[in-house]
Amino acid sequence: MELALWLVPLAGGAAALFAIWLAYDVLRRDSGTDAMQEIAGMIFEGAMAFLSRQYRTIAILALVTAVAVGVIVGAISEGVKPIVSDGGTISFGEEEVVEPWEEGLLTGIAFLVGAFCSGLAGYIGMFIAVRSNVRTAAAAQHSLKDAITVSLRGGAVSGFLVVALSLLGVSGIFLVYSRILDNPPEIAPFLIVGFGFGASFVALFAQLGGGIYTKAADVGADLVGKVEAGIPEDDPRNAAVVADLVGDNVGDCAGRGADLFESMSAENIGAMILGVAIFATTGDIEWIMFPLVLRSFGIIATIVGLMSVPLFADDAPDSKQDPMTPLNYGYYIVSILSVAGLFIATYAMLDDSWHWFFFCGLVGIATGIAFVYITQYYTAGSWRPVKEIAEASRTGPATNAIIGTAVGYETTFMTAISIGLALVISFVLGSQADIAGVPDFTTGIFGTAVATMGMLMSAAYILSMDTFGPITDNAGGINEMSGAPASAREITDKLDAVGNTTKALTKGYAVASAGLAAFLLFSAYLDKIKERLGIPLTEELPIDLANVDVFVGGLLGVMLVFLFSSLAIRAVGNAGGAIIEEVRRQFRADPGIMAGTSRPDYAAAVDITARAALRQMILPGVLAVGLPVVVGLIFRYTRDSSVVVGGNEYLDASGWLAVAGVLIVGTIGGIMMATVLNNGGGAWDNAKKFIESGGLKDEAGNVLGKGSEAHKAAVVGDTIGDPFKDTAGPSLHVLIKLLATITLVLAPLFIATGADNVRPAGGEDDDGAGIERSITDEQAAR
Amino acid sequence: MELALWLVPLAGGAAALFAIWLAYDVLRRDSGTDAMQEIAGMIFEGAMAFLSRQYRTIAILALVTAVAVGVIVGAISEGVKPIVSDGGTISFGEEEVVEPWEEGLLTGIAFLVGAFCSGLAGYIGMFIAVRSNVRTAAAAQHSLKDAITVSLRGGAVSGFLVVALSLLGVSGIFLVYSRILDNPPEIAPFLIVGFGFGASFVALFAQLGGGIYTKAADVGADLVGKVEAGIPEDDPRNAAVVADLVGDNVGDCAGRGADLFESMSAENIGAMILGVAIFATTGDIEWIMFPLVLRSFGIIATIVGLMSVPLFADDAPDSKQDPMTPLNYGYYIVSILSVAGLFIATYAMLDDSWHWFFFCGLVGIATGIAFVYITQYYTAGSWRPVKEIAEASRTGPATNAIIGTAVGYETTFMTAISIGLALVISFVLGSQADIAGVPDFTTGIFGTAVATMGMLMSAAYILSMDTFGPITDNAGGINEMSGAPASAREITDKLDAVGNTTKALTKGYAVASAGLAAFLLFSAYLDKIKERLGIPLTEELPIDLANVDVFVGGLLGVMLVFLFSSLAIRAVGNAGGAIIEEVRRQFRADPGIMAGTSRPDYAAAVDITARAALRQMILPGVLAVGLPVVVGLIFRYTRDSSVVVGGNEYLDASGWLAVAGVLIVGTIGGIMMATVLNNGGGAWDNAKKFIESGGLKDEAGNVLGKGSEAHKAAVVGDTIGDPFKDTAGPSLHVLIKLLATITLVLAPLFIATGADNVRPAGGEDDDGAGIERSITDEQAAR
Repeated sequence: MELALWLVPLAGGAAALFAIWLAYDVLRRDSGTDAMQEIAGMIFEGAMAFLSRQYRTIAILALVTAVAVGVIVGAISEGVKPIVSDGGTISFGEEEVVEPWEEGLLTGIAFLVGAFCSGLAGYIGMFIAVRSNVRTAAAAQHSLKDAITVSLRGGAVSGFLVVALSLLGVSGIFLVYSRILDNPPEIAPFLIVGFGFGASFVALFAQLGGGIYTKAADVGADLVGKVEAGIPEDDPRNAAVVADLVGDNVGDCAGRGADLFESMSAENIGAMILGVAIFATTGDIEWIMFPLVLRSFGIIATIVGLMSVPLFADDAPDSKQDPMTPLNYGYYIVSILSVAGLFIATYAMLDDSWHWFFFCGLVGIATGIAFVYITQYYTAGSWRPVKEIAEASRTGPATNAIIGTAVGYETTFMTAISIGLALVISFVLGSQADIAGVPDFTTGIFGTAVATMGMLMSAAYILSMDTFGPITDNAGGINEMSGAPASAREITDKLDAVGNTTKALTKGYAVASAGLAAFLLFSAYLDKIKERLGIPLTEELPIDLANVDVFVGGLLGVMLVFLFSSLAIRAVGNAGGAIIEEVRRQFRADPGIMAGTSRPDYAAAVDITARAALRQMILPGVLAVGLPVVVGLIFRYTRDSSVVVGGNEYLDASGWLAVAGVLIVGTIGGIMMATVLNNGGGAWDNAKKFIESGGLKDEAGNVLGKGSEAHKAAVVGDTIGDPFKDTAGPSLHVLIKLLATITLVLAPLFIATGADNVRPAGGEDDDGAGIERSITDEQAAR
Repeated sequence: MELALWLVPLAGGAAALFAIWLAYDVLRRDSGTDAMQEIAGMIFEGAMAFLSRQYRTIAILALVTAVAVGVIVGAISEGVKPIVSDGGTISFGEEEVVEPWEEGLLTGIAFLVGAFCSGLAGYIGMFIAVRSNVRTAAAAQHSLKDAITVSLRGGAVSGFLVVALSLLGVSGIFLVYSRILDNPPEIAPFLIVGFGFGASFVALFAQLGGGIYTKAADVGADLVGKVEAGIPEDDPRNAAVVADLVGDNVGDCAGRGADLFESMSAENIGAMILGVAIFATTGDIEWIMFPLVLRSFGIIATIVGLMSVPLFADDAPDSKQDPMTPLNYGYYIVSILSVAGLFIATYAMLDDSWHWFFFCGLVGIATGIAFVYITQYYTAGSWRPVKEIAEASRTGPATNAIIGTAVGYETTFMTAISIGLALVISFVLGSQADIAGVPDFTTGIFGTAVATMGMLMSAAYILSMDTFGPITDNAGGINEMSGAPASAREITDKLDAVGNTTKALTKGYAVASAGLAAFLLFSAYLDKIKERLGIPLTEELPIDLANVDVFVGGLLGVMLVFLFSSLAIRAVGNAGGAIIEEVRRQFRADPGIMAGTSRPDYAAAVDITARAALRQMILPGVLAVGLPVVVGLIFRYTRDSSVVVGGNEYLDASGWLAVAGVLIVGTIGGIMMATVLNNGGGAWDNAKKFIESGGLKDEAGNVLGKGSEAHKAAVVGDTIGDPFKDTAGPSLHVLIKLLATITLVLAPLFIATGADNVRPAGGEDDDGAGIERSITDEQAAR
């Protein structure tokens, strides 16, 4: 506990201070010429206007949801009971220590705190990001090193704020709910699950709204500019070009920040819940605090790694260095220091079995590194998949789209193998840990949690690299629009290409962490059900796939993934169509725009996109929140499966069984689908870039570059992939976590409790079916 | 039993005789002018050449697999034990009645018989189909009624042969393996699972090879003809046009026939296995024979319905009747007679609880009808989804593709809801049946089996309508290429459009039946495991999703669905590219082709497509067969989960647990993915047709028809959808069923048996974990 008490606030505070220093460092730099500042000003205004508008909408939704969650939990829960261990079984006490109304209130407050922290991190991070772009553009006129330093530090503001607010938020609310409100520490994790739900809730709408905005603007600008009017990307004559630059920020920066904020929060809380079972037996609070400590070491490792990046960057003004190189070195440093931190944390906190969990953490760190390479293989131009799409572009947009789809589907292969291996290995390693009175199953699951936390140690670094993407993209746009010298544009183009890679890596990282975390979050849901039903934590609660409720729940879970993706993608298509019409209208209304004599109305395009995006985010968001609840309620009240655990038969279990099916099969489907959408989109994008860089030649050996039919086909493919990789895919990461947190918080809704619903197994009505019985049987038993 | 003894051979024989009469009736008709016969001859030769070549490849693969399966089963099985009931539990006897070597031999032979019957049905059916096309073309010069009659009867040859061979095959081999070899009737269903595996095996390669061929030719012909050269569909100057017409037959006719053959066979055998548990208690063989009897009544209903279609067709030569109308009337007749047959069969065979199963069958028939409407809503031009895609074509191919993808994903919604409802309702109805000594769970599952069989009663009719598609498509092509009068072409165009609808319906029907059957096939797999482990059939065997092996198996199952789809789609893209190059080459080499003075080399294009398609079918086929086996073996030998059932703990269960995860989560993913691919592709196709029929107008009110930019965009979308709906989607139906049959047959591979692997639950090593324990624990126990 001592380690946690001083390290966690120290690391959280250090991260926050570091973010402030980074912001100061970026803001004091040269902000370029008047022309650059004018364009940057438009981007800044458009981005902040969108974000304010979006957060107003989200705030209203979040307030309503917080009250609803608080009231529901308060009304239906039966209070939280303490946890007792008799050495062999870990079970719940008789008397509740937290009243139902108090549980509802605390859950509602935690929801709001989580939502607020998520929003705050997104807001400040983006505020700095849209001030960093013009400074990166100006720095590019000096050297590559300066440009990398500014853009990475601008991105790191977001990265460190997200990590700091998540760590301080989770540990702060844990401290308040346990120490200050004087609750036993082992029940506090159950009280703070609202924090994760609040964070997921904001992340869902932030990612959806931002993702729809960015791709509607991008698709619209590309189609009407590059394809129809034949003017280059970021050409100032295109009315959609500022909206496009705004979109990069609100989607990639604010959206992904919220995504990883909730990932870290939800996985942290889930891991703490799993630690409860071990704490109850051993009495060592370290098992609950461990995830927070590991995250703290991760922050320290990340600060050092990030500061070291400029050391590896080439200072020469005509440098030919690949900007990915210094970023990679920084990541290696983060990884090495993370291993050291993992060693200290496990050794200091996890008793005699520390080494098994150390190995679990290594598996997580290795999985993170593996995904960096897997994502590169599937989406970078130097490998087979992207080249295959480029080749298919020779025969037109249809074959490009067909092969692109095939590549997207293919990318599930290494993803599933890696996640599966990581899960099995960390589970096996964890189950080797020998802790008296704790079943191997529990330490195994805790092993997967340690792997997840190990992987997330480098989250701040990954997120810094991600936000680096929109900043450099913007910097390139500002230089293009303001007519900066060619050398500066060359540097920003190079950085932009790296930004595309880092954005893809972040998504791969997010999917992998979601895959690893799925298992631990699912176990937390089962622990919550055990708590409600009074089943000892050490008992197995089987979620039987051969049960019709679980099976149909699983079917609906996969359906949710597809329907949600459909709504997200369609939103982009619809909003994109609106912008195209607007730009065409402007071209028609004022021929001076095309001639370059009058300026298009950028603000109108920004505004149309914002309104369309916010309108379109509501339906998929409501679907994601509503479906698990509706399924749980319908199955609870119309079906009546029962489950036998530890000699007792629990009747009316259909509600939570069907929700478990939705949750876990939906999560598997969501992980695979997000992989398809993210990597497919990334591969399409880079196939286009591969052709633009002269990688494709005709039979006579002439380059099929920009303007060729093959290139036009590749542009179509890139456009198809845009909403896949930047709207639906990233929103699916959030959906997966939202499913986990919403089911965790609202579990009592799906559970029939009370003495009527338990009876000894094998009783007079037992006909051998065990798990499943009919309505007649059960009615007869009443 | 008496009913089954005379009805099943009678109905099977009637179906076969009916098919022969239909073939005679079609073949004696007018086969048109010399020009028509010449083109038809080329199609016939191309199709039969492909089929012969394909069947040679499949025959070799099937022989090798049959021997391997026989040897494996013979080597690892422990023989089949009889089933005994003591009124409360249904369990397996001590002494085996079938020796291991005999089980291997019988399984291998059943595999070969299943494979042979499937191949035979496909071969004869297609032989007649490619002779019916020219006769339909000729009949179209007389009247719509004649054309409908010929094409539907030509299609029905295939439909009835498939049903007859499946029914006679399953019942024949059941008779031989029980009566003639003198085995107890309750173990015979376990011996004939090889029949289903053989059928699935052939179906997989037939559907894959045919599907790749048809779409490679279609995509190639469309892109190089319509888009590049600007010549109409089926224009004789296009060298790929004959290959395209050949493809319709080998994909839709032979492929889909094999698909439904194995559906019916596998589901029949699965239903018989479920009937075994009830038979063992009641001693009524009817529970095993029931699925065969229901199918027999279905055949009678279908013959009457099919013969009545011409009665509803308009005889006037200038008829404006929608050809779908008489087909719908015929389907209604089939449905009504099926209900009557269902009533007789349930009443006569299923004891006092017959009415519950009658209701289950009604649910199945209603589900079949529901899917006819659901598929139409999602894929027909008169509804919102298709119009939305057509609208999106205004802004180019990218938005067309984006919205088309969104529509495809959306179609999972009603599909999942309907399948889920049908499963839950039929399960609940079935579990109401009160049969002494049989648990409600078992009658519930049997209820879902009856629903599946009820739905499949109309299979021959659906399949006749399906094969009607390629026949009319071919007839249109023959009329186009031979310069037939406009009135005839109008009729074949109309029939062709209907054929597109019926093809889409068949796929919806196939997906729905796969969804309903998933649950029963999965239960059959669990029964097989119980047989191996000596667990009573009446015990529940939980497949716990919270078990890491099941979870990772599920992840790999969904990955298999995506990877398989990827390989199938890519195969089309690759083969399609090869044909495009060939046609371009011919255009370049001989300018007379475009001028219309010389004939292109059709045979070369046919040949290139055939070779490419057969090469490309191997990899996805091997993946589908290999993955479940590899996963099962790896988990069996590296992991060691255990499962507690009925007071015993079964160790080393990881192999069959992981395979169960692959099977069931993969099935859920496969059903949803097939829906996406089939319906998405169908909607894209009809969006193009919607534009061609003048459904889209510009702002000034002018029709945006053929040749407009919107139409070009829609053609791209149609082309993208082609491999989705005709290659990957239909192959996924087969994959799902193959997963079920292969795991059923090879289950012993994944199961560790013997006394070492069972111990009483709650023993000294039991630490409360119940289902899951670590390697150390178990090693300690040995």
